[in-house]
Amino acid sequence: MAVTYPAGFRAAALKAGIKPSGKIDLALIVRDAKSPRDRSGCAMVFTQNRLIGAPIVIGRDLRSRTLKGEIVPSAVLINAGNSNSATGDQGVKDAKACCEAVARQLGLGSEDVVPSSTGVIGRLLPVEKITSRAAELVTCLASGEAADASAAEAIMTTDLVPKVARREIRLSGGTVRIGAIAKGSGMIAPRLDSAYAPLSPSATMLAFITTDAPIDSVLLQHALDAVAGVSFNCISVDNHASCSDTVVCMSSGQATGVDPLKAGSSELAVFTDALRSLCMDLAMQVVTDGEGATRIFTVRVSGTRNDLEASTIAREVVNSPLVKCAIHGQDPNWGRIVTAAGNAGVDFDINATSLSLGPVVVFEMGRPLPEALTDPRLKPTLAAKALIAELRVGSGPGRGHMIGCDLSAQYVRINADYTT
Amino acid sequence: MAVTYPAGFRAAALKAGIKPSGKIDLALIVRDAKSPRDRSGCAMVFTQNRLIGAPIVIGRDLRSRTLKGEIVPSAVLINAGNSNSATGDQGVKDAKACCEAVARQLGLGSEDVVPSSTGVIGRLLPVEKITSRAAELVTCLASGEAADASAAEAIMTTDLVPKVARREIRLSGGTVRIGAIAKGSGMIAPRLDSAYAPLSPSATMLAFITTDAPIDSVLLQHALDAVAGVSFNCISVDNHASCSDTVVCMSSGQATGVDPLKAGSSELAVFTDALRSLCMDLAMQVVTDGEGATRIFTVRVSGTRNDLEASTIAREVVNSPLVKCAIHGQDPNWGRIVTAAGNAGVDFDINATSLSLGPVVVFEMGRPLPEALTDPRLKPTLAAKALIAELRVGSGPGRGHMIGCDLSAQYVRINADYTT
Repeated sequence: MAVTYPAGFRAAALKAGIKPSGKIDLALIVRDAKSPRDRSGCAMVFTQNRLIGAPIVIGRDLRSRTLKGEIVPSAVLINAGNSNSATGDQGVKDAKACCEAVARQLGLGSEDVVPSSTGVIGRLLPVEKITSRAAELVTCLASGEAADASAAEAIMTTDLVPKVARREIRLSGGTVRIGAIAKGSGMIAPRLDSAYAPLSPSATMLAFITTDAPIDSVLLQHALDAVAGVSFNCISVDNHASCSDTVVCMSSGQATGVDPLKAGSSELAVFTDALRSLCMDLAMQVVTDGEGATRIFTVRVSGTRNDLEASTIAREVVNSPLVKCAIHGQDPNWGRIVTAAGNAGVDFDINATSLSLGPVVVFEMGRPLPEALTDPRLKPTLAAKALIAELRVGSGPGRGHMIGCDLSAQYVRINADYTT
Repeated sequence: MAVTYPAGFRAAALKAGIKPSGKIDLALIVRDAKSPRDRSGCAMVFTQNRLIGAPIVIGRDLRSRTLKGEIVPSAVLINAGNSNSATGDQGVKDAKACCEAVARQLGLGSEDVVPSSTGVIGRLLPVEKITSRAAELVTCLASGEAADASAAEAIMTTDLVPKVARREIRLSGGTVRIGAIAKGSGMIAPRLDSAYAPLSPSATMLAFITTDAPIDSVLLQHALDAVAGVSFNCISVDNHASCSDTVVCMSSGQATGVDPLKAGSSELAVFTDALRSLCMDLAMQVVTDGEGATRIFTVRVSGTRNDLEASTIAREVVNSPLVKCAIHGQDPNWGRIVTAAGNAGVDFDINATSLSLGPVVVFEMGRPLPEALTDPRLKPTLAAKALIAELRVGSGPGRGHMIGCDLSAQYVRINADYTT
């Protein structure tokens, strides 16, 4: 189970005819009306692309009103097959019309429904295909395995597999559950924003998270801001951040016996840690299903002056097409990793720089280790499904990492012919 | 003819056994000893990668001494098959040993020979293979078609074709010639530095330029700094700047009847313009021969606050794997272009943004033009060998452009198995 794993949520999905393939493409996740207002919340993070899709224009406004305490959105309406991006004012009107139709069926206001769209960019949303199915969609709302699986499938685009995750944690008063669905395969390099402060600024990656923890919007937003930066923002498939990246997290407060989570409490820390673990799980599922990917690799950088420098170097390495092709070919061409690092715009001393691939040190304090290339551990390290490259560039305290995937001919085939 | 097209230069090349393929891999370009010192010069620009190959460590020092008037390097020794990068102090010693061996044969000091290497990274240079052939290399020095063609071929790595260019300009006193060879196909996103001021900071691209114009090192360096920024630095094959990018330009001053070029003169402007034209020609040859490339595309950006913002946006678009795959597939998926632009970290107003592909406007002031997708001009525009995308993002005075190539399955094949 996923989004209906926590108490207080239902989901539904159907084929609205938006995807040219005719596959299931419209999903709705709803928090029960009986969720107590002071124990429920809604938090959101969005892409920092300067071009934002119409759903993000609306979503940012809803987030702002939520944090002021004016509203607590309780539903998310998601379609795949059309991203409703680069669609101007008409796009915003269209998204609102869809939310209104669903809200009316739910007996809610339109501000209670967060829109989210993924798919082709620059085409007007087929509004009628969505609004005409609003009643049916609401009728189908249910809890359970089948509802969750349909919702997870409906939001897929080039994904090969649906992505779901769940966590259960024990707090003093009782058990809290967190559930989620996500999608993402290409146009993946999320650099999700924060409601409070810009993270260091970067596909379409969507994730919808539910929890029955009693937590209000403000605390939930703080928790989501904190975990997005160390989970979703640490993956990249193709270094092209989408205009539609969205994570929405809703709480129902219906966990039996659990007191409302309080700022600074150890229980909030336990909840946040579970949320981080779930988001990292989803992020790994996304990068593992990266378009054309056959293996993933993690680049860990240390020794910089600060963490931002380390992340910046890790990002440059993980995004280099030459590095990605070497990983694909199981080629020990580690020179591409160090030269990619050298392009990150961060100063470091090559003579204080060392690199290892798995357990094999290939470059140490500025000097190549030719014997590394014949180390019997190297071949299985490069052939494994997951590779870890450790790059130390000095003695500073900075640390950071990024997780990417290889670049295959299949990636090109998928993307050379996406709209046509 | 190329590097020996101007008066006062000879070239030679041979098979030294550095390339595993056994192809020709060692070249030497030499300015005649009789070039008058006050009418000859040497200028260089190098990669801004933080990791620099051993030849660049030496080259930067030689440049500095040249600009102080201490030396005027008169030869360039180039090998392909091994980049002598990430090779520590040993790499610097090795490069110097090669230059010394050649200098001795030429009756020059080792500071007269600029080293340049391209090929695999992180392997020690096979010094003996080079030094043992120094005498033969010098004996083979000659002017003419054959010498130029051999040198152009010797510096190739994954290049499919050799790259040569030449220009002839008429100044008041007589005729001046400029000739050049270059290489580059992958690891191409040069962001060459300047001897005087850092350019906005970016494969292995090598270019060696000769001229018989009477121009000293300082003026020649100023001219090369100025043209590198608007030629080599405007191309990208894979957004991975090499640790070895090098352009060396030598002048012999042997053009008959031409007075020494003077700072601020119209004759210097005419020379600089010819140098710019020649460098742009070489840069276009490099991107056209980009690894796996089947077509090139130019992204022109305007309407930003300044030129740097426009170039930054153009660079983000030209480097997006999703954009590159769409260009490869002749796919009118222009949403990838506008979303890539949105990731450049430059603020602009989507509602003031328009995009055209060749003559077809696909997005105008924030709104998609659906009729564009059925415009009969669109298909031939996308099928052409060269595509121009014009992106206007506002009404500011900034302008910039970048030239890239498509991403094909062939690129992956070339790079998944380069060293092994």
